[in-house]
Amino acid sequence: MIVSLLVWDTPYLEAIEEATGEKVVECRSAEAALKALPEADIALTMGGAALLDETLLATAKKLRLVLSASAGVEKLPLEALHARDIAVCNAKGAHAVTIAEYVLGGMLAWSHHFPTFIQHQERAHWQSFFSGDDLDGQTLLVVGTGLIGREIGRKAGAFDMRVLGLRRHPAPEPHFDEILGIGALRETLPRADFVVMATPLTDETYHLMGAEEFRAMKDSAVFINIARGDTVDEDALISALRGRQIAGAVLDVFHREPLPKDSPLWSMDNVMITPHNAGLSDSAERKTIRFLCDNIRRFRAGQPLINQIKKGEAY
Amino acid sequence: MIVSLLVWDTPYLEAIEEATGEKVVECRSAEAALKALPEADIALTMGGAALLDETLLATAKKLRLVLSASAGVEKLPLEALHARDIAVCNAKGAHAVTIAEYVLGGMLAWSHHFPTFIQHQERAHWQSFFSGDDLDGQTLLVVGTGLIGREIGRKAGAFDMRVLGLRRHPAPEPHFDEILGIGALRETLPRADFVVMATPLTDETYHLMGAEEFRAMKDSAVFINIARGDTVDEDALISALRGRQIAGAVLDVFHREPLPKDSPLWSMDNVMITPHNAGLSDSAERKTIRFLCDNIRRFRAGQPLINQIKKGEAY
Repeated sequence: MIVSLLVWDTPYLEAIEEATGEKVVECRSAEAALKALPEADIALTMGGAALLDETLLATAKKLRLVLSASAGVEKLPLEALHARDIAVCNAKGAHAVTIAEYVLGGMLAWSHHFPTFIQHQERAHWQSFFSGDDLDGQTLLVVGTGLIGREIGRKAGAFDMRVLGLRRHPAPEPHFDEILGIGALRETLPRADFVVMATPLTDETYHLMGAEEFRAMKDSAVFINIARGDTVDEDALISALRGRQIAGAVLDVFHREPLPKDSPLWSMDNVMITPHNAGLSDSAERKTIRFLCDNIRRFRAGQPLINQIKKGEAY
Repeated sequence: MIVSLLVWDTPYLEAIEEATGEKVVECRSAEAALKALPEADIALTMGGAALLDETLLATAKKLRLVLSASAGVEKLPLEALHARDIAVCNAKGAHAVTIAEYVLGGMLAWSHHFPTFIQHQERAHWQSFFSGDDLDGQTLLVVGTGLIGREIGRKAGAFDMRVLGLRRHPAPEPHFDEILGIGALRETLPRADFVVMATPLTDETYHLMGAEEFRAMKDSAVFINIARGDTVDEDALISALRGRQIAGAVLDVFHREPLPKDSPLWSMDNVMITPHNAGLSDSAERKTIRFLCDNIRRFRAGQPLINQIKKGEAY
């Protein structure tokens, strides 16, 4: 039996039932999960907003497979799952194109004043600008060159940007002019006109961007976060934006989501906010459903799984 | 003597004086132009919003060269200029990268709901979407494959769009999957998810998009105009948007500019309006200044001019 612990409305479940012929029991609360989990051998979840904690896991006696509909799985009890030899797979890559489009869109919207023009449109106000610059010739720093980071790098190349990447184990990548170690973050930040966070959230990347890092950025540079809110010290980001240490930010993820009504970020005129939506599109959805169904079938047939996160491995 | 007939604030003139060592007399009105033109041998102008009509031209006895700071020159009295053997050059290419960035930004902003999110941000409203699709795999139709159209095609390729182009004389172009004759417009429109106007305004392209053409588009398709307002029958466009015959529009140019306060376009929720700004950026400005200065120097040295529009030639 498959249990879904996806806590928000998704169009996934019906499509999965249809494609696999299996029944999916939907649980939106810990209570519902507590009832269904003991009979389930497969659980669908979001690795970044997971219902599945160690207490619930203890009741899931038959559980053999956890499938995350997201790439990030930082909220899953990975150690406990591995200790019980429960396989864990993430939807790595399903959202890469969509998120890369969002990032390029965000940089273009910033450079070409779209937020201002959209506000002007609301009051039928026509005002042209001679300011701002093209992406062409500017430098983009991608922090984390996984599938998402690489797709961002590829698309940025078509805009003739200089593309720098940071990763744990530096090795040349197509579409990147330079790849450096993540330890070179502080010294690389002053070169960038745009800085994009595209790392998973781990102990290593928690608050990777703090007060010192924002100080190291150009005051004309724009910070973009499509990773996880906690890769950034959000207070330090707010200070940097307030003090115009950086020019602006495009933010899809936050320390707390939904972003609280009283967050000062909402009203900053140099910030563009989207509601953790960068990876959502019809196409990303189709890819995610395909990933989930493929892995359900593979599991049933005893075949190797796609995107399995093995014990102790980075994802 | 050089006379500037650029009717809006530009940072060009000082830079031109500095680079060429020549004095530039600035005229913002027909009256001022009437005084200065008789002594000028070079006139700087915007070919799409030109002060230089045939009456003024008659007073410009010494005029030998007209330099347009824009690519479009539809408001210049070309026949009269050619009849007097006054050379005319346009700033073809100086805005191509900037405009192509705008178009890609506009398509991405549309696909990823930026206008809605920017409006939501104003009231600290967090609401995610599962709708919309990536550019990836969609079809773009570029009407006019000059320097701007080609740059749009190149960038669209990095988003794995299918790119179709229409031009007067079809011939294969890199970055385009197909190039068809402009006469194939009506039959090609039903294939496109995005239609971008990138033609000069000529007798041939006046109202190229009318009621029939909008009817031929998919009702999910988006219309983008970065050419000139009058390449489109604006009333037909408004009807098509009202009737949801097309999904939306990204518009930088209009029949009348500034767009009148009472235009219904301002308040349509499926329209994004920018104030004829798509080609404006620091970088486009640097390229325009370089083009103007180069041609001034070439003219003084008796060398061949850049981007000269010869009698009877298309531009």
